[in-house]
Amino acid sequence: MVDRSDLTRMTKVEVVVTGADAPAVRDLFRDAGATGWTSVSGVSGLGHHGEHQGRLLFNQQATLEMIITVVPDDRVDALLAGLRPLLAATSGVMFVSDTWVSRPGYFT
Amino acid sequence: MVDRSDLTRMTKVEVVVTGADAPAVRDLFRDAGATGWTSVSGVSGLGHHGEHQGRLLFNQQATLEMIITVVPDDRVDALLAGLRPLLAATSGVMFVSDTWVSRPGYFT
Amino acid sequence: MVDRSDLTRMTKVEVVVTGADAPAVRDLFRDAGATGWTSVSGVSGLGHHGEHQGRLLFNQQATLEMIITVVPDDRVDALLAGLRPLLAATSGVMFVSDTWVSRPGYFT
Repeated sequence: MVDRSDLTRMTKVEVVVTGADAPAVRDLFRDAGATGWTSVSGVSGLGHHGEHQGRLLFNQQATLEMIITVVPDDRVDALLAGLRPLLAATSGVMFVSDTWVSRPGYFT
Repeated sequence: MVDRSDLTRMTKVEVVVTGADAPAVRDLFRDAGATGWTSVSGVSGLGHHGEHQGRLLFNQQATLEMIITVVPDDRVDALLAGLRPLLAATSGVMFVSDTWVSRPGYFT
Repeated sequence: MVDRSDLTRMTKVEVVVTGADAPAVRDLFRDAGATGWTSVSGVSGLGHHGEHQGRLLFNQQATLEMIITVVPDDRVDALLAGLRPLLAATSGVMFVSDTWVSRPGYFT
């Protein structure tokens, strides 16, 4: 493992929802204390996002947006608590992972 | 490390290939038991993807697509076994990483 | 944890900057010994990237680009050393994480 003592570990949360739901996700990020976000457009998907999923439809695509934020550990619980009802209502998905950043002050 | 006892660890596989090869990647995902995928268009790249790589060409770009799936551990081997020949034939690349999800039923 | 003995762990570096700064990031990647990169366009963001961040502006967006590279551990320090001054000058952000690849020769 590379030495990352000059970096700070944080939690990255990636949410994939429809474009219509993206502003609500960003609002939830802000309400949970996230200091910013990165959004990726041009995203499509199937299945993970809850659409009907027949074998014949596996290459069909829904128009989606991926919204990414990075938060310190003490804001993860609030963030996930806020996102769960929205994801349940919209069939969006969420991926949570470790990341390391060089300027922790940007995220706190 | 933040407590993630309310999340389930899975494996995220990100594949970067040409747009022409993307449907074959999604078919391989499905054949290996993945329940869905997320695709990102507007992707370009060099070098990692096997193109000629002279110093002068390092900022040139090929048109690519990133296709992401998340699977439980017991489907990773089948997924990678399916992808290897396609990646070898197309000079695509694959990144494998840990991720945590809130609704494991979506991915199994 | 899934057995990844057939994969090689490397470090993924994701940088989010304005489109104008993206070529400089790719040049820094190359100078640090990265063998390639993947860029995602259609990216927007706020806050993490240093813009003014009032509550009313949280859904406003700047046009950005995400540039991703994967390097072996012995090139991480050089890569981060090269990126720090550019990020400080441009208010870009950087995320560092673990990833596993199937063909390490592509990245060395």
